[in-house]
Amino acid sequence: MPEFFTLIPPDEARARWFDALSVAIKAETVAARDALGRVLAETTYSPEALPAFRRSTVDGYAVRGADTYGASDALPVYLEVVGEVMMGRLPEVAVGPAQAALVHTGGAVPEGADAVVMVENTQPAGPGEIEVLRRAAAGENVIQVGEDIRPGAEILPAGHTLRPQDLGGLLALGITEVKVARRPVLAIIATGDEIIAPGTPPMPGQVRDINTYTIGAQTQLAGGEPLPVGIVPDRADALRAAVAGALARADGVILSAGSSVSVRDLTATVINDLGKPGVLVHGVAVRPGKPTILGVIDGKPVMGLPGNPVSAMNVYRLFGVPLIRRLLGAAAPARRTVAARLAVNGASAAGREDYISVRLRPADDGGLPWAEPVFGKSNLIYTLVHAEGVVKVSLDATGLYAGTEVEVELF
Amino acid sequence: MPEFFTLIPPDEARARWFDALSVAIKAETVAARDALGRVLAETTYSPEALPAFRRSTVDGYAVRGADTYGASDALPVYLEVVGEVMMGRLPEVAVGPAQAALVHTGGAVPEGADAVVMVENTQPAGPGEIEVLRRAAAGENVIQVGEDIRPGAEILPAGHTLRPQDLGGLLALGITEVKVARRPVLAIIATGDEIIAPGTPPMPGQVRDINTYTIGAQTQLAGGEPLPVGIVPDRADALRAAVAGALARADGVILSAGSSVSVRDLTATVINDLGKPGVLVHGVAVRPGKPTILGVIDGKPVMGLPGNPVSAMNVYRLFGVPLIRRLLGAAAPARRTVAARLAVNGASAAGREDYISVRLRPADDGGLPWAEPVFGKSNLIYTLVHAEGVVKVSLDATGLYAGTEVEVELF
Repeated sequence: MPEFFTLIPPDEARARWFDALSVAIKAETVAARDALGRVLAETTYSPEALPAFRRSTVDGYAVRGADTYGASDALPVYLEVVGEVMMGRLPEVAVGPAQAALVHTGGAVPEGADAVVMVENTQPAGPGEIEVLRRAAAGENVIQVGEDIRPGAEILPAGHTLRPQDLGGLLALGITEVKVARRPVLAIIATGDEIIAPGTPPMPGQVRDINTYTIGAQTQLAGGEPLPVGIVPDRADALRAAVAGALARADGVILSAGSSVSVRDLTATVINDLGKPGVLVHGVAVRPGKPTILGVIDGKPVMGLPGNPVSAMNVYRLFGVPLIRRLLGAAAPARRTVAARLAVNGASAAGREDYISVRLRPADDGGLPWAEPVFGKSNLIYTLVHAEGVVKVSLDATGLYAGTEVEVELF
Repeated sequence: MPEFFTLIPPDEARARWFDALSVAIKAETVAARDALGRVLAETTYSPEALPAFRRSTVDGYAVRGADTYGASDALPVYLEVVGEVMMGRLPEVAVGPAQAALVHTGGAVPEGADAVVMVENTQPAGPGEIEVLRRAAAGENVIQVGEDIRPGAEILPAGHTLRPQDLGGLLALGITEVKVARRPVLAIIATGDEIIAPGTPPMPGQVRDINTYTIGAQTQLAGGEPLPVGIVPDRADALRAAVAGALARADGVILSAGSSVSVRDLTATVINDLGKPGVLVHGVAVRPGKPTILGVIDGKPVMGLPGNPVSAMNVYRLFGVPLIRRLLGAAAPARRTVAARLAVNGASAAGREDYISVRLRPADDGGLPWAEPVFGKSNLIYTLVHAEGVVKVSLDATGLYAGTEVEVELF
């Protein structure tokens, strides 16, 4: 069995694979309001100043700060009220010495004024007059022109994944369209003579396709677009035709290969037949997921996932998700992790990365929660359904003792 | 100014609001393959055993375990090979004493056999015969019927948010449709005489609408469906008509109110006019976000958000997101948090929850990263664009010292 003669550590396998890809970010223009979760294809700069006019941050009176110097309850300063600034309009008044203009939160500060006294710090005096009871220093309660962002300033860099506030920042400047990376399309091919579509009643010996849907959902969450191709029989000609067709339509091809050695060898042969450099990695030092194939055909990535759905998801998390982020030109998505204590000893082997599915149980002592491994053979999908996350046992560890503090990556 | 006579702590405000809602989860049936991120409306149970037949986990020979007792390199056990199990079919052979059948990973284990010897632990002997070099105990390398999940077992509880592996678990059992909670529709009304749509060139004194889009995006991420109503002028009749119309079409109404006191009072009046119990909370002990209105009209939630976009997003994260999860019948979404050290002193006031926007900087000493507050007035949207998360200063604290370990909730 030459296929696992050398198992390659995961980080090295990923680097070898990525180095052989030709990645060109393809941009498309979308409405900023619909761009949540998309990745910017170019660095964006502010076309104008925000705010475009001086705005009050409070309800109060626009004044010349110097006029209020020394104001107190005991010694109020008297100012003439020359008008009110209406929302949505430029002020029709200017504020001269010993004058004030009523202004609302968000309203424009009139010419001549340089501060706003909060209405709570004033009281009506005679007709058209107020008493100011507290000093307002120059600039107080005023947002200056361009204080939020200046014209020409960088808004967000290329590769940034847009969040709700980023849409707000863009739209506030009138940027209603943005250039984002087109979602990479990943064709997903399920192979296996025993595999049937989930809607079909199985005959004895047949099992329903899972990987098309779990891998498709992982693809979506990472920002890619899954292209389910369907189920292909375990024959070289059928597989070759399916992969060639998928390569023409997609940015990469994911094969959920059958699990037996002969079928994995078939996958490798087909990848090598279809273009250069072909298979780069065949066997990774990771559990679950050892029988992983990483290849490149004429610049496009091709992956052979283990058929077992648990291994397939683990491998796709380790290689497929970073691939998608790379094809998007994006930084890796933030991982959701929690600190926990391992509830039982976790065995591993030196030279292999192990991933243990766990669920979390609150600790009676109020400390870190316990991470309890989910019992069951590693190829049962319900070990993942019943898990909340995974704990990694690193390459150089031979296991983790019960009680060890671990980082749980949540699903 | 009676509006903030009593500021209510956030947790109490939320409880008072939720208690007055009438929440009925509305279910709809969707294809399981399209149900990623949806919330189950009912507990699901397994209709059948998975797997439905005994499966081999390796490539090898199905045997009677007892026949291999004592097998070793020095003393191999000889077995007659009676056939091969084809993938996707029930075995055409049975395994009798001193017999074996070739079986592939995932293939059915034939009648009579109770274990599978890995092919690596065998070697060909004469024609139709193998040597077994290692013992296989009964059950070894075999997944039993129902070992993944048994018929009638609970799959996932109502209220569970479906992840990629959950879709796999459902589809593996032939469950191609699921009942999920319909996404709650939240109407979003922007008010303010100074507010214009982002695509319109602003006149002096006007500003572009942000909140419709930031709140809409937060709604989407939480599992709700935003219904943007548009911009309504600051007049009681216009606002009343808009809220009444939105209530008829949506499961709740979010008003992004103008920021001045008079406009907030208008919002409260309109909510009280339209039905019972009306306004329940007017002013919350939180910064940013104090001028928050929480109301209920005939069982449906109505929120008055502060007009300032930073306050609006903070308040929506504290009240709107939990509201959506409640309307879905879901557990709160997992928060993404990281531990960090506060880089500078953070001031607060006892009796008020403060949220400080921060970005993270790796620490030179290899310890926890530094959480650096983003400089700027609290109502500038770019303080959120430039931030990676928020740090909460709890109600009873008067601030946090530099160096304090804090939890950063990532955006």
